[in-house]
Parts: sequence; structure tokens; C-alpha cells
Amino acid sequence: MKKNSGRPGEFEIIKTYFSPLSRRHPGAFGLTDDVAVLAPPAGHDVVLKTDAIVEGIHFNRSDPPDTVAKKALRANISDFAAKGATPSVYLLALALPDWPDGQWLEQFAKGLAEDQAEFDVTLAGGDTNRTPGALTVAVTMIGFVPQGTVVRRSGAKLGEVVFVTGTIGDAGAGLALLKRQADACGAAEEDLISRYRVPRPRLAFGRRLRGVATAALDVSDGLIADLGHVAEVSHVRIEVDAVRVPLSEALVELRGRDISAIAEAATAGDDYEIAFCAPASCRPLIERIADETNTPVTEVGRATAGEGVALVDAQGHEIKLERCGYTHF
Amino acid sequence: MKKNSGRPGEFEIIKTYFSPLSRRHPGAFGLTDDVAVLAPPAGHDVVLKTDAIVEGIHFNRSDPPDTVAKKALRANISDFAAKGATPSVYLLALALPDWPDGQWLEQFAKGLAEDQAEFDVTLAGGDTNRTPGALTVAVTMIGFVPQGTVVRRSGAKLGEVVFVTGTIGDAGAGLALLKRQADACGAAEEDLISRYRVPRPRLAFGRRLRGVATAALDVSDGLIADLGHVAEVSHVRIEVDAVRVPLSEALVELRGRDISAIAEAATAGDDYEIAFCAPASCRPLIERIADETNTPVTEVGRATAGEGVALVDAQGHEIKLERCGYTHF
Repeated sequence: MKKNSGRPGEFEIIKTYFSPLSRRHPGAFGLTDDVAVLAPPAGHDVVLKTDAIVEGIHFNRSDPPDTVAKKALRANISDFAAKGATPSVYLLALALPDWPDGQWLEQFAKGLAEDQAEFDVTLAGGDTNRTPGALTVAVTMIGFVPQGTVVRRSGAKLGEVVFVTGTIGDAGAGLALLKRQADACGAAEEDLISRYRVPRPRLAFGRRLRGVATAALDVSDGLIADLGHVAEVSHVRIEVDAVRVPLSEALVELRGRDISAIAEAATAGDDYEIAFCAPASCRPLIERIADETNTPVTEVGRATAGEGVALVDAQGHEIKLERCGYTHF
Repeated sequence: MKKNSGRPGEFEIIKTYFSPLSRRHPGAFGLTDDVAVLAPPAGHDVVLKTDAIVEGIHFNRSDPPDTVAKKALRANISDFAAKGATPSVYLLALALPDWPDGQWLEQFAKGLAEDQAEFDVTLAGGDTNRTPGALTVAVTMIGFVPQGTVVRRSGAKLGEVVFVTGTIGDAGAGLALLKRQADACGAAEEDLISRYRVPRPRLAFGRRLRGVATAALDVSDGLIADLGHVAEVSHVRIEVDAVRVPLSEALVELRGRDISAIAEAATAGDDYEIAFCAPASCRPLIERIADETNTPVTEVGRATAGEGVALVDAQGHEIKLERCGYTHF
């Protein structure tokens, strides 16, 4: 039944590449049982997230396999960061076409191993299938948060201020570079492409936002589009000052800093930064958390009366946008 | 960015078809947040399982969409049944090619809704992506089991007896009928195809196996292949008496009851029955549980010294098999 003769079968793949990744967790049973079992720490809620990445949509066949693994994991970990939660174990549902060979799988598993060390998570189970179509990596991350403290999208209030971590638009520019829709070279190009391929979840920072942020989410479809989700469920209007949108040096080198470059950055995908709202009185505390976790944070806007989200210029006028975000659908 | 103009976009799909399925669970937040949150019942372990089904491998494009949904859910629920665990919520990672239209999605969601009622589970989160390849439905099921009582694969002991629920080989024959590798008509054909398309997890029965079965698993890759997993991790040899392998009337009508028909049934996939081991002294109790849960159970073999698994004839001689099971890989 094996179609790719250069690749081991299902059980050899699990045994060779994936079982070693499960060893630290007793409830993973070395991936030799039907389910995984996890004892929840007392006083905590279980937090669940699934996010899949698809060849040709979220990554390309030519991407280094370890970066594909890391993108799949980090897309999920980034959600935990934004919610103030701690990821613990993950399940991996892999749909494999014929083309990934043993070497690809080895590098893929190496990426998983490196991120397990980096984020203190462990593989607890999975499912490996053949597909006649695109390679699909579906990760489900399971973790914990102290009971009742998860940071929702829905708690933003009138008059609060809006922050975002890191810089915005880099991954979108990295994707454009990969698609040769833009040109750059040297360190700037590498920076931007690496931002696209390997998100950098703000786990340590996010954990400190519990009880501070009133609403938060990870920016994956574009800063404006994602703040739109906060605005919708929090029943506020969010205004983002274009001039305050944090851009990296590499991005400014590539595109400049005019309104159209800012609009492009604020509507590009795959940033995996945290956007959040908090009372203005929390500014000093947020600054301290940013310092202590070594996380750049920028105040970019405010929650006002009304609905929707707007990118506004220095005069407070709404900038017309061609799109609000990047859809992976 | 929308590619199929006859179909709504990602957020409309979630809002129209999937949010209604999450309503019963407060921690699903109506699918409007990044994660789902679940309060674990005191004194319980969390049980985790992910299983994906792929178009062209586990189901066909022409299958009724509600049966695709049910197969995806029940493949996971079946594992919970075999482990004595209770499923609670699930996450759905859907990779959608262009061809499923609104009507397909509506029927798919109807299948999910029916099974939510049947098995008392609720959608808690998900991820909907476009794919250039095969439709892939990855379900992650999360549930609970009283602390430390999960039924493992590894507890079978020398001298114990081996049981299986229901009948074996029906789904494999249903697949052969769908592939026109076999012919049948009328009720028998419908029965067998329905066994292939819609597994029937033995949840009520499995829950009663806690503290009774020493090892159990769900039969999805073939009775012989799956009992091989039990033999391996329990360090026993398992012998299955060919003549005792339970076959349905529909299957006997199609293939007869000779050794080759039995061998074919015992190595076919997608049964989703429970195979388990227990001390011989538990026979009366198992019979009672079978009665009370209205579940057919058959004693099919025994755990002996040695390793591996064998299908044996009335004289106790091992029957040579061309394959041990059906691989979906």
C-alpha cells in the first residue's frame, strides 16, 4: 500500500521521527496507544486551539522543512500567547503526499524538536495519513490558564488604549519577496522572509497580560482586520494612528514609510504579534512588562464610541483601505 | 481572495454553518475568540485524540456530506469508546478545495449536528482553510476519564481471553462494493456500505469496560493488525480462532464463511469495533454489560506466551495471511 518507495511506512514514520518527540510526556504513552492522557493542574482551565497550514497556501514545498514544522506549531502557540495561556502538549495530524522523503521528515521532526525545547511543549499524539493532494499540517495545542483568567477578545472598553507588540507587515513583505513581487537583498531580505516563515510568539509577554489587558488577540490576518474582530465583539470602534504603526528597519528600507507602505503593512498577514487593549492607567505597568520580557510594545490607537476599525492620519481622518487584511482562504 | 464564487468566504462559513454547532458550550465563545476554554471536572484526566480523514483515502467526493462529517467525528469517538473515556468537545480543522459548495457545507454541518446530539459532544473551535488539494477533515476530540482509569493497550496478561464487539469485515466489504470490486444488492449492500461510511462507536459499552478490560483498542486497521498492537505492548501472543470471528449475515451472504472470507474480514479496515482482553473470570460480567448496553460481544481468542498475533484454525494451526490489516497510508 506504500506509494513512495523512498519513504518508510506509517508506523516506521511514527516510530522513527515522532515517538522520540513524545518521550517527555508519560500520558503520550510513546505514541503507542489510541489516545493521550493529561492530568490538568488544579485550579486551571484547559485551553484548546487548532490551526492547520497547507502547502501552496501557508507555505511552499521549497520551504525548509524545519520552518514548516515551526510555523505549524507557532501559529498555535501565538494564540496561547495572546490569551495569557501556557501551551503544554500538542497533537499532530499530518496529511502526506508522495513527495516528502525521509530526509524531509527528518528535518521536519528536527524543527518540532527545536520548538519543543524553545516553548516547553511536547508531542502527545497524532495521526499520519497519505493524501493525493497538498501536504497539510494540522496542529492542535492543549494547555492551561489559571481558572477564569483567559484574556478574551470581548473586554475592550470606551476610552482604553490599543497596543501592539513588535513590528507589523514584515511577514507580508517576506511573502512578497518569496513571490518575487518585491525585491530586496542581504540581511533585510533574510529578516523579512524569516518573519514570514517562522513566527515569533510573544509567550512570556502574553502571560503577563492576564489581569492587565481587557482584550487581546494575535495578529495573523492583518492588524486592521484583527482589531476589527476585537471591535466587533467588544462593541467599540478602534482607531489606529497610521503614523504610530511600528515598522521594522528592514521594511522601511524596502518600502519606505509613506501612507501606502503603512496601509500595506497594517493589512498584511502572518505577523503573529499581540494586539491588545488596556486602560490608559496601565501604561506604566505595560512598559515595565515590556522591559522585563524584552518585548517591544507600541501604543497605536484607542477604543472609541461606534463600531468598526479605522486607520487614521495625523488629522484624524480615516484612510481608505483597499482591503482590511490578508485572507488565507 | 475567494476562489469559489458559489461559496461564502471563511468568516461566513464559520458564522453560517459552524457557530450554531458551538452554542451549547460557553467556552467555545461562539467561535469568535482565538481559543476555546474548558473547565475539567474534578478528579478526571483529560483525554486527547486527533484523527483526520482525507478525500480519496478515507472517503470519496461522491459520499453524502453528512456521512463524511459523521465518519470524521466517529473515528475519534470510537477511540474514546475503546478507552472507557467520555468525549466532550471537538475542534475541526477543515482544508477545503474549491468544489464543496454551500449545499455540501450545509449537509456536512447537518451531519455534525446529528452526531452532536447522538454522542453529546459540542464543537468548541476550528480552523477553515483553502487547499489546492484533497478535502481534509481533521477532528481533535477532547474528553475526560476518571483519574487513572483509562483502558490502555498494554495491560493484557497471559491466559486472558480476547473479545470483540459487533461484527468484523463489514466496512471492508462496503468499501469493496463502492469500488465495484464486489457485487451485492438490496439491503445487504446498503448495510455494508453504511458500515463503511458511518462507523458506530460503542461508547456505552466501552465506558463499562473500565476496571474490567485489561487492554482494549478500537479496530480500525483490521482485527488482526490491531490485536498485534495489543500483543506488542502487552508482551503476549494473541491467538484468534478463525471460526469465532463474528461475521454479519450480510457479509456471509456476500462472501460465504470459509477460511478465506474470514481471513479477509479479519484483516479489513474501518470496523470501529472494540477488541479487548480480560481475565476469563470476567466472562459473566462482560455478558451482563453486553446485555445491558445492547452490544453484541464475542469471545474470539486468548493471550498466550510468545509474541505477535495469529489467526488459527480449528486444529490450532496458524493460517497464513497475505496481509495483517488495511493501511490507509
